[in-house]
Amino acid sequence: MFIDSDVYKVLEAVSWELSRAEEPALRQFLVETTDLLRRAQEPTGYLNTWGQLVAPQAHFDKLTSSHELYCAGHLIQAAIAAERGAAFSGLLEVAIKLSDHLVDVFLDQGHPGIDGHPEIETALVELYRETGLERYLQLASHFLEGRGHGRIGHTAGLSYIQDHVPFRDMDSLVGHAVRALYLECGAVDLAMENDDVTLLRAAIRHWEDTAQAKTSITGGMGSRHSHESFGDRYELPADRSYNESCAAVAAIHWNWRLLLATGERRYADGIERTLYNAFAVSTSVDGTRFFYSNLLQRRPDHLDGVDTAQRSEWFDCACCPPNIMRLVASLSSYLATTRPSELRLHQYMCASLRAPAAAGQFGITVRTDYPWAGHITCEVTQAPPGPFTLALRLPEWAGCAAINLDGQPTNAPLQDGYLILRRRWQVGEKVDLELPLKPELMQAHPRADALRGALAVRSGPLIYCAEAVDQAEDVEIDGMVVKPGAVLAAQPCDKDGIGATVAVTVEASTPAGSVPGVDAAGALYQPVGGSAEVNARDVPGQLVTIPYFQWANRGAGAMRVWLRADR
Amino acid sequence: MFIDSDVYKVLEAVSWELSRAEEPALRQFLVETTDLLRRAQEPTGYLNTWGQLVAPQAHFDKLTSSHELYCAGHLIQAAIAAERGAAFSGLLEVAIKLSDHLVDVFLDQGHPGIDGHPEIETALVELYRETGLERYLQLASHFLEGRGHGRIGHTAGLSYIQDHVPFRDMDSLVGHAVRALYLECGAVDLAMENDDVTLLRAAIRHWEDTAQAKTSITGGMGSRHSHESFGDRYELPADRSYNESCAAVAAIHWNWRLLLATGERRYADGIERTLYNAFAVSTSVDGTRFFYSNLLQRRPDHLDGVDTAQRSEWFDCACCPPNIMRLVASLSSYLATTRPSELRLHQYMCASLRAPAAAGQFGITVRTDYPWAGHITCEVTQAPPGPFTLALRLPEWAGCAAINLDGQPTNAPLQDGYLILRRRWQVGEKVDLELPLKPELMQAHPRADALRGALAVRSGPLIYCAEAVDQAEDVEIDGMVVKPGAVLAAQPCDKDGIGATVAVTVEASTPAGSVPGVDAAGALYQPVGGSAEVNARDVPGQLVTIPYFQWANRGAGAMRVWLRADR
Repeated sequence: MFIDSDVYKVLEAVSWELSRAEEPALRQFLVETTDLLRRAQEPTGYLNTWGQLVAPQAHFDKLTSSHELYCAGHLIQAAIAAERGAAFSGLLEVAIKLSDHLVDVFLDQGHPGIDGHPEIETALVELYRETGLERYLQLASHFLEGRGHGRIGHTAGLSYIQDHVPFRDMDSLVGHAVRALYLECGAVDLAMENDDVTLLRAAIRHWEDTAQAKTSITGGMGSRHSHESFGDRYELPADRSYNESCAAVAAIHWNWRLLLATGERRYADGIERTLYNAFAVSTSVDGTRFFYSNLLQRRPDHLDGVDTAQRSEWFDCACCPPNIMRLVASLSSYLATTRPSELRLHQYMCASLRAPAAAGQFGITVRTDYPWAGHITCEVTQAPPGPFTLALRLPEWAGCAAINLDGQPTNAPLQDGYLILRRRWQVGEKVDLELPLKPELMQAHPRADALRGALAVRSGPLIYCAEAVDQAEDVEIDGMVVKPGAVLAAQPCDKDGIGATVAVTVEASTPAGSVPGVDAAGALYQPVGGSAEVNARDVPGQLVTIPYFQWANRGAGAMRVWLRADR
Repeated sequence: MFIDSDVYKVLEAVSWELSRAEEPALRQFLVETTDLLRRAQEPTGYLNTWGQLVAPQAHFDKLTSSHELYCAGHLIQAAIAAERGAAFSGLLEVAIKLSDHLVDVFLDQGHPGIDGHPEIETALVELYRETGLERYLQLASHFLEGRGHGRIGHTAGLSYIQDHVPFRDMDSLVGHAVRALYLECGAVDLAMENDDVTLLRAAIRHWEDTAQAKTSITGGMGSRHSHESFGDRYELPADRSYNESCAAVAAIHWNWRLLLATGERRYADGIERTLYNAFAVSTSVDGTRFFYSNLLQRRPDHLDGVDTAQRSEWFDCACCPPNIMRLVASLSSYLATTRPSELRLHQYMCASLRAPAAAGQFGITVRTDYPWAGHITCEVTQAPPGPFTLALRLPEWAGCAAINLDGQPTNAPLQDGYLILRRRWQVGEKVDLELPLKPELMQAHPRADALRGALAVRSGPLIYCAEAVDQAEDVEIDGMVVKPGAVLAAQPCDKDGIGATVAVTVEASTPAGSVPGVDAAGALYQPVGGSAEVNARDVPGQLVTIPYFQWANRGAGAMRVWLRADR
């Protein structure tokens, strides 16, 4: 029912790719597929493979599961990408014809349905932005406000499709994570275009709740395998967190919209954390294999029907790979924002950026090895005549930073988490930002039940993991215990199968008397105080950790993000 | 496909009920249903609703999912129960006719299939015991040894149906828990009847692995919601453990067979733990509502599509309620065993028991409030002329016991976990066993990642839980922390909605500065040492706990088996 959306996501990715460099094969695919879609589209504007070939009598009659509006949303997003990225309007004509049909059916004729899978909302707001036609904004608003009244059912319950309570009354994200997050994106878009403060307030409340109690340390969201859904507050398993790759894409979209809406650093921090961890881990180093769910642990005896702790080339439900494609292809859009006489740099990667100024342009080239190192250089390539602000995000993880202008320490006041450099710039001037990037041990809030007695390694924005392949021969990851004061050491290196990385060794020890698979501790359950105290004889050793996103590229083996902290 | 089995399980339960007291309505149901089955049965002996009405051309062609042999197994078990419990042979005739057909198809004609859901194996061994006909034993062996060669596939992987590796080579239970446990039952049965030591050794190895690394503290088995399956070793979530009710039934069947095969106390301990916790919790106090999965925690914000933390009256997949019925109806069969001149008492509940002696009979009446109290009285009601042994299980949880004969301390040597009383008995003599039943805090093996930093309350065989309804108004279960040395106090009481119980209060405290829903600890993830040390200002309080099996009888609210131990 939703396979059209995968084609649309590929078309969106192709369009963003074409924005950087012309590729005849990609453009041919875009043009030919558009032609196919135009020919398949019904005179009314209706367009959907399932609705035309499988269930032609039932347009919009099974919206609980049909994904007809979901697919339409992805078509609209692809069409706008083709217009903006590839200067190709053909797809937008198809999308507008379908969108006008939706306006006719749902606004004018009063069809009461909403889609079981949100996505159309954010697409329609963008179509409004692209065309200026208010009816698309109205339709998006109609769909958002239509939720929470149980208009369509679902065997997994109304919360699965976020139809259990009106959006504004929702306290915490529940149900299918990707659905919930796509809906949040549409809500923030609508709040912005409608200057709707109460809607924005609800969206922020949802974000704060999710950040406090429903996000993995990697930024992954949706901890339950059942229904690919959010768990309860603080239900954050250290091992089998579902963390669907599509949810990571959606979380980046969500944070980006809230960043645009509020300018607050925490959303840029959220993009960074998700990008380098929950999102990056989804793809193999060679770019050919993908995780659908992104577990935080693989136990040594892992024996599942399908080994979900290994990446696959494809999936029967193929939503994730093309979703990853469209985010990678548009990644450059998430680096910076502008305000009048200001360029605000949110993410640090090598880039050339330009921003309009009152007169002329401001431009910089960013050079950095981030996140491997904390040094970022911005060289001014274009300087407007008047004062202009360069604002640099101070990541929450960093806490402080040193900043030099042409080699001299300079004063850059911190405003809302951004270092502000306001001056008349000269071409060739260099700003050097030094973030104190070093590995450290992380602990979770004690309400996160599954994470008590566990520690994780973080270095800058990167979450680390211990993978069996990197350990000394006699080291069993699950048998090693890390103390809160353990010494950590970073070591840049090259590793077969993953290439350049920075490994972090962690001081650890093996509880005395352990044999492989079983600690000295004995029985599975026993009265408190029943086990012998063997602290004095622990065997010192170390664990080697690598960035989480690089794991599972060297065969199947044990892995842990959360290391054992207690015995 | 498997709905026939639910009828058969009801017939089995009805038959065991009739063994205790005649009930005309139950007998009528047994007789009429048997008549229906006889009329429905094909001349070949084939009998299956799905195979005759839905897919009549495909007998035994879709064994991966058809459950045809699984249903046959339940028919055989019901038929034997009718013969033994209700002295009714009609059903056994139907079952034998079907079994002979299976012998013809699978042994004589060489059909290569095995069933996707084990169950037929243990049933056929019992039919061999009932009839003495070796062909049933051979067919059971044929099915067991046929597994592990990938003869039938499954979308969830071969391990889901225990077809990934031959039984004897398996190291650890994997896949669908009920399937795995039913297969274990059949294997122990076969090992016994065939004097197959290597098969028994494999079964014991599986049990030891499951006990050490794959069992909830309640005795529940199968921790994963996905595929209702066993997790990896030590994958034992404190919250969402699946612990299917049918798996608890199967675990009792499994332990019982291993107890018969070895005489070892640990299997009787396993029955006790499962019976009073994982099994008992499945049914509401009023006996009308059931859990399908038995979670160990319900968070305060629980909002699921279907609230799996509340019992239901019925299920689309109705396997659990009739499975619970047949175990309850046959519970008296699991109390004791005999050997020449010996009665061995494994479970303590009010009962009258008789055992054959060299001359005459030995009989006792057992009176006890166990598990509410540790006192058990056995009064001799029949005494044979010669010496006779009464063996009483000393539960592993007890460690020691006091034993009196007619009020005087007596010497009862401990052999393999049983207190042995061998003497010439007199009618009217009383043996009083006093087990040191008191509440204590339990901890889990440190490899059980999700259980580190958590403590549970146990009193005798009962696992306890804190349920919101029992707490003082200002006590939030998830906000309370228990120290390893906390004082526990038992208090017999009556509670509306659950009746008689023994509550246990646990000394606990609220971390300083907490507000509902959020501890003082602050952010979800932070560097080690980042949170303020607030130990000195913890607010003392207490948690009230009740036996886990009694929870969820007084509305929906938060519950925890594993209490927070760390901050």
